[in-house]
Parts: sequence; C-alpha cells; structure tokens
Amino acid sequence: MKPVFKELEVCVMEESFKELKEMLAEITDIGSAAAVLGWDQAVNMPPGGAPARGRQLAALGKVTHEKLINPRVGELLKVLQTHEQSLDYNSNESSLIRNTRIKYNKAVNVPTEFAGRWQSATSESFDIWLKARPANNFKMVEPYLKKNFDMCKEYAEFFPGYEHPLDPMMDNHDYGMKASNIREIFSNLRKEMVPIVESITSQEPADDSFMKLGFEGKKQLEFGESVVKAFGYDFNRGRQDMAPHPFTISFALGDVRITTRIQEHFLGSALFGTLHEAGHAMYEQGGAPSLDGTPLRGGTSIGVHESQSRLWENIVGRSRPFWQHYYPGLQKHFPEHLGNVELNSFYRGINKVQKSLIRVEADEVTYNLHVMMRFDFECSVLEGSLDVSELPEAWKDRMESDIGIRPKDDADGVMQDIHWYNGIIGYFQGYTLGNIMSAQFYDAAVKEHPEITEEIGQGKFSTLHDWLKQNIYQHGSKFTANELLERVTGNGLDVAPYINYLKKKYGELYDL
Amino acid sequence: MKPVFKELEVCVMEESFKELKEMLAEITDIGSAAAVLGWDQAVNMPPGGAPARGRQLAALGKVTHEKLINPRVGELLKVLQTHEQSLDYNSNESSLIRNTRIKYNKAVNVPTEFAGRWQSATSESFDIWLKARPANNFKMVEPYLKKNFDMCKEYAEFFPGYEHPLDPMMDNHDYGMKASNIREIFSNLRKEMVPIVESITSQEPADDSFMKLGFEGKKQLEFGESVVKAFGYDFNRGRQDMAPHPFTISFALGDVRITTRIQEHFLGSALFGTLHEAGHAMYEQGGAPSLDGTPLRGGTSIGVHESQSRLWENIVGRSRPFWQHYYPGLQKHFPEHLGNVELNSFYRGINKVQKSLIRVEADEVTYNLHVMMRFDFECSVLEGSLDVSELPEAWKDRMESDIGIRPKDDADGVMQDIHWYNGIIGYFQGYTLGNIMSAQFYDAAVKEHPEITEEIGQGKFSTLHDWLKQNIYQHGSKFTANELLERVTGNGLDVAPYINYLKKKYGELYDL
Repeated sequence: MKPVFKELEVCVMEESFKELKEMLAEITDIGSAAAVLGWDQAVNMPPGGAPARGRQLAALGKVTHEKLINPRVGELLKVLQTHEQSLDYNSNESSLIRNTRIKYNKAVNVPTEFAGRWQSATSESFDIWLKARPANNFKMVEPYLKKNFDMCKEYAEFFPGYEHPLDPMMDNHDYGMKASNIREIFSNLRKEMVPIVESITSQEPADDSFMKLGFEGKKQLEFGESVVKAFGYDFNRGRQDMAPHPFTISFALGDVRITTRIQEHFLGSALFGTLHEAGHAMYEQGGAPSLDGTPLRGGTSIGVHESQSRLWENIVGRSRPFWQHYYPGLQKHFPEHLGNVELNSFYRGINKVQKSLIRVEADEVTYNLHVMMRFDFECSVLEGSLDVSELPEAWKDRMESDIGIRPKDDADGVMQDIHWYNGIIGYFQGYTLGNIMSAQFYDAAVKEHPEITEEIGQGKFSTLHDWLKQNIYQHGSKFTANELLERVTGNGLDVAPYINYLKKKYGELYDL
Repeated sequence: MKPVFKELEVCVMEESFKELKEMLAEITDIGSAAAVLGWDQAVNMPPGGAPARGRQLAALGKVTHEKLINPRVGELLKVLQTHEQSLDYNSNESSLIRNTRIKYNKAVNVPTEFAGRWQSATSESFDIWLKARPANNFKMVEPYLKKNFDMCKEYAEFFPGYEHPLDPMMDNHDYGMKASNIREIFSNLRKEMVPIVESITSQEPADDSFMKLGFEGKKQLEFGESVVKAFGYDFNRGRQDMAPHPFTISFALGDVRITTRIQEHFLGSALFGTLHEAGHAMYEQGGAPSLDGTPLRGGTSIGVHESQSRLWENIVGRSRPFWQHYYPGLQKHFPEHLGNVELNSFYRGINKVQKSLIRVEADEVTYNLHVMMRFDFECSVLEGSLDVSELPEAWKDRMESDIGIRPKDDADGVMQDIHWYNGIIGYFQGYTLGNIMSAQFYDAAVKEHPEITEEIGQGKFSTLHDWLKQNIYQHGSKFTANELLERVTGNGLDVAPYINYLKKKYGELYDL
C-alpha cells in the first residue's frame, strides 16, 4: 500500500502548492495594482486627487494584507513543510515557500487595521511633503513625519523581542539586516572613507562649471534615453516620465517604468539619474519569465537593488572608458556648452568630490556620509533621543560637521528626500550596502569576462548585461542578498573591493 | 419599556448602516483603483504591460465582486429594510440602501469566477483591438470579440427569465431599460429622423473643407482646453491626455480625467471631442461632496451621462451663439486656415449633415442611425441570427442602406468603436437616450433661466452649469434616470423636445 500513499501524498502536495501559488498570484497582482496607483500619484495625479488616492491605496493595502494573513496560507505552509525538504533549495518552488513563510510569519503579527492606516498615513504625508518641500515649510509636514515615525515604533511593537525599533522595518527592505549590523559596517567603512574625503577636499577642487550652464531639457532626455537603450533597458516594456523625486517602479516583467527630473542648470541630475534608475529597471526587467506574477518577481533587497543602480550609474556611467565612447556624442548634443571642454576635464568634472547638500547628486566619495547621517537619525528618533521637531537643526549641524557644508534651508536639508515622508524608514542603509555590493559584483563579472572594461569603451554593454542577467537579474528575489552574494562572489558582504575601487579611481584623479 | 426598545432599534440601525457604508466605501475605493489601471492602460502603458494588466484588473474585479456578494451585505440590507421605510426617499441613506439592494441582488447571481474571467477576457480583447484596428485586421480580434459576446450570453443566463439576452447587461448601463423598450423608442425616433436625413442629404451639402486643413495639434489642444475651462471643467481636479478612443474616467470627485485624440487634418475631432468629454467630466466633478467615496458618487446611467456630454458638445458647442463668442478667438488661433472663413460658413460647416463613416464624428442628424445599427447588431448576435464572423460585411451593408456610404475597410467599420472589444455591450443605446434627454434637460434649464442662450453668446456658462449642478450633477447616482427626468422635467423620456430642437436648428440651415 505504501506506493499509493506516496502518490496520494505527492498529489496533496501538488494541489497545496498550486493553491498557495494562486493565492500568492492574486496578492501579487493587487500589490502591482497599488504600485500603478503610486506611480500615477507621483507622475500624473491632479492635486484634487490626493485624498481619494490615500483611501484607494489604503483599501488595496488592507486587501493584500488580509489575503496574506488568511489562515489558509498558514495551513498550506504547514502542509508543504515536509514537501519543501524534498525540493531543490535552488528551485522556484522551494524559494516561493521559504519566501512566503517569512512574509506570512511577519504579516500575521500586524493587524490589518494597521496596514490600511499605514498606507493612508504615508500617502497623506507624501502629498503634504510634495507641497511643503517647494515651500521650504518643514512645520507643515512635521506632524505627518512624526506620525510616520510613531507608526514605525508601533510597527516594531508587533515584533516583541526586537533588538532595535528600526529592525522590523529594515528587515522588510534588507532582509536579515539589523541596526547593529549596519552600525558595524558603517563604522568600518567610515574609518576608511573619512581620510579619503579629507585628503581630497583639502586639494584643489575639480572644475565642473560647464555642467551648470543652461541645457535644454528635451536634449538631456534624448541623450540619457539613448544611453540606457544601449545599456539594455527595454522601452517596449517601460517608459520614462518626470517626477519630483525620481524612482523606478515595476508592475510586471513587461512594465517597468523609470522617472527622472530635469534641471536645466545641472546636466548631471537627469543624466546620471536616468542611468541610475535604468540600473534598477534592468534588474526588474531581467527576471526569469517563470517568476512573473509571483512574489519572487522583483529584486531581492534594497541593497542588491542599489548595487545594480549604482553599478550602472557609477562604475560604468562615471568611468573613463564609458566617456571615451560617449563624450563625442554628448559634445555634439551640446556643442555650445561642451565643444571646448576636453574629455579629461569633463571626466574630472563629473567625478568632482565636493561638499554638497543633496544626496542624490553627491559624488561617490562623500555619498555614504549622507547615508550614514540618515541612518543615525532614524535610530535616534526611534530611540527617543531626538525629537522630529529637532530634525531640521540636527540635520544642518551634522551636514556641517560631516560634510563641511551647512544647508541654508530645509528644502535642501531634512526635506530633500521623499523616503521618510512616504513612510520609507529603515531603507537608506541599502544605498551604502548597494555601493559595497556593486564593487563586489562588478569585480566578479570582470573576473569572468576581463573584456568588459574594454567593451564599455566601445559602447558595448551586452557582456556585462548578460552576466548580470544570468547571475543576478534572472533570480528576482529567489535568494536573499546574502545567498546571492555567496553564489556570485563566494563571499559575504565585504567592503574591501569597494574601498579598492574608490582608492584606485580617485587615486588617479587626486593625490591620495 | 417601549422607548428603550425604540432607542435600541435606532442604535442597531445606525450601526448597521455605518457597517454597510464602510463596506461599500472599500468596494468603491477598489473599483476606483481599477479605474486608475484602466486609464493607465489606455493612456500610458507600454506594450509589454498588457498581459499583467489583464491579470491585475481581473484580481481587482474579483475582489470587488467577492466583497459585494459577501453574505454580510445581504444581512445588513435585511436589517435595514424597516429602517429604509422611515427614511426620506430623497436622502443619501435611503438611496444608498436602494442602490445597494439592486446591485447586490444582481451580483449574487454572478459567480466570482465569472467576474474575474470577464475582466481578464475584456482586457485582453481590448489589447488585441488596439493592434487589430490600425492593422485593419478583424480576423485578429474576431475570436476575442466572439468570446465577449458569448460571455455576454453566459451572463444573461445568470438571470433566468430575462426577456432578451441583452437585457441583463443593458440594465447595468441604463438601469430599467430593456431591448424591447429601446426597440420602441428607436422605432419612433427613426420615423421622425429618416425624412429629415433624406431631405437634408438630397440638398446641396455644406462646405467644411476648411476644417480639414493641417491644424497644429498643440494649438488645437490649447483652444479646446480654454473652452472647457470656461464651461467649468476644473483642471485642479482633472487633466487631459491623449487616447486612441477618447473617454472620461473618474476616480473621485477630485480626480476626473478626460482624454482626446488629435487629427491634424480634422479640426472637429479634438475640439468637439474635448467639449463632449468635458460634459461627462463636469457631471462627475459636480457630485455632492457627501457622495464622494460612496457608490453614489458617479453619474446615474449611460443615458443621463451622454445627455450631459451631448448637451455641452452639441446644444451648446455647435450652437450659433456659442460661436458668435468663440469664433474670433478660434480665427486668431488659426488665422491661415480660418481668417477668410465667415462665421456663418463656419457654423454651417461644423453642422454639416453628411453620409459619414465614424460615429463619434457624425453630425447630430445622422448620429442616431449609427447607434441604431449597433444596437440591432448586438441583438442579432446575441439572438444567434448573426455570427460575429459575419459582422464586418453586415456592418458595411447596413451603413450603405442606412447612411448611404459603404466603409472601405473594417478599421473604419466594425472596429471603429472600442466598446464591444472592451466588453461594453448593451451600452450604445445610451448615446441616443442621451441625445433625447439632453434636449429635455436643456429645455427645462432655459425655461427656468431664459437668459442662458444669451449668456452662451457672451461666453458665460455659469447659469447653465450651476443649474445642471443643482438639478443633475450633485445627485450623482442617487436617483435613477427616470426618477431624475421626472424630478427635473416633470415627465418621463420624451423624444419631442429633441425632434423639435433638430427641426428648428436644421430647418434654419436647410430647407426642410
């Protein structure tokens, strides 16, 4: 009789897995629908649409939460427990079960009422921020920001035993990471970075005045789009629009959209912004078709996501070989501005290290200092040692002490980033994790294909893109960030390749 | 003890009503979210997004359906039955209960599985139509169209005892209407219209060649937007975009969007299209704030909705007083094209009655003949006397016999309208009901405010807009089309005012 039982068991497993997969597909589709609403809110929505949009997002947030914590999901996970052990750990099936177990176990701790309230509060504060930032009026948005941080603490309380109140939120963005890990990584990195920053900023600054002339917006867009097409971003499965704070968003493998912002008086903003977002977008477009419509479709963590955007923006897009190929074309686009600027001066200019106010426009060397202060502020506010009302001044002070420049206003200070106002807390560390990983991944790619650097100098990106697709993109979120790092590099997170990259590049540009 | 029971009862009623209202608010919000996805699909979505969009819409359709047929809704409706009798029939509360009872009783007959399948099938056929129409390839979309009609029949079977298989769908668009009613109305109207059409088309046609020169798209948009702003369409609570088949869509009182299409070689397309959609949009923007976020927010039926769009497009926008005010401005916009065209010639040109192929561009006189044939085809296909594969030829034949012109291809024949391909069946009759009601409503407005016609000649629309808001817009779908007609005009549906309007207007232009 044994074989019959065995067959019966296999049949039950198959049915259970099929049921779970269908439930997850529905949750994924509703989540993607919410993403469409979020994109529309940032790109198209007329001012009058804001209150209803908050309600609509809250309703969708509530539905996906309800569907995820459906006890049937728990039952199916239980049934599938033995099945899981017989599966190949690297299979989609095994990963889907693992991934769902993690999400389910977290979600059941969170009341549906909170999920809806969180969606609605963060959507509201986002809309207030949209008005408060151009008005340079922090007071206007302060109570909403306070509410977001308070709700972040409330969220932490759903996970008794947490080490730090930031941990439960951070875990959603960079799975497995804790504030204590980040503190340690940041402290090691800081030790290496501060002397480099000090050494460079004490030297003659590079000239980038040619970047700050009036560049026609349409032409900026054209050039950026031609580059990301060459990278491999597929416009048949995406589009680029304007947004006050650029982002990438994906509704399916076939619909991954990027946004940018044009500054007529700073060429770097739209250009490098587009390369950055295209890095995110190619990661999302490159998932295996078998993952579409499942929760495994998107990138695996903020850190890995940022490693892809920063890789294309910086390691590729601010490299000398890249501009050896592209600079003549850019000069033709803007002959009046760049016709008399030599490639070498241009390369120095776009890699100018300087004391600057805006994170997204910061150079590679000072960038992580911007991230570190945000992480520290999140910790302090959640620990209760810093009040939200004190943030604007604390921000200015820290900018002055860390980066050597004091913001004149809050628009370019505490209000410059969308994140906190949109409820995105415990996220900033991902940018620096991304910088670190970008060097690890790029080194692994070049180790396998030493021709990559030369190809970049010929405007050819397919070897790099294919390698990334093969080793990273196709897996979506099948593996955690750490698993992926181990698979690809054979190591865990390691700051050394990133420090080496910076020392080599900037050692050539400056006297280090 | 009686008063205590009474209080207890009042309390139960209040609680039950509150619960119902909250459930309906969630359904409404999810429905509005689906509308955002629909808008995006028509306006922005890259080609690769189509399959996932179908799934996402299906998931939302399934959720709203599940939530509407929740047995708790039925229980609450039962509890509220006695309460309802004590309410003022004209109150929001009473209408919400009535309205929900109707929808609930219909929805419980329809399996959730069907609701999702319908969303997904119609979204898919819409995407195929988007490609098939420009390719003039009916074969490509034929199986999808057949499926839509088959599913329409399947839908009818959920309502045993229906009189005609078109009725259950039609009832969703024009509540209370049946194919038999429409047949009677159309037959009466046809008797009046055919001699007018014959008399006019046997006369010397008006010259409208000046409408068919090359008009810069941007300027067309500017002019149309300036007019609808003056009408009272609020761009702070809306926006206009391009779409292959123009439509209005509303996500909330504060977010009602219109779309248009530009034809450089036909000024009338975008211009009158924009006026038309603005008519729909003002109706949606004009709902009472107390209805926002409830199922009563939107317009009450397709017929009433069309009465508003056709009123602004035709009765106002193609009238002599309107152009007495606006023509000099239009001439200034396009001096090369219109500088030498007299107002009178222009007025005759935009009201040219002719044998034309495209419904949305047809003149007022022949327009209803386009509608009638669509209605007849729906009936024939559903009755089984006409196969979907026979539609292209049947279309051409009917155009020839009714309107006197034979389409050369299917793009401008059976594929010209989005409706059937998007699963919108039992809807076309609403356009003609709208024409009929537009005259009834306009007459009522002018009866109360005889100054309206003169004001239109001064570019002043506030008296008319306010009257419409007061008498129609503010009620959303609180009242059925028939109730509204009775309230506003003291009569039911009546073709006489519309026939009088046409005879007067076209009697002045032609020898009738």
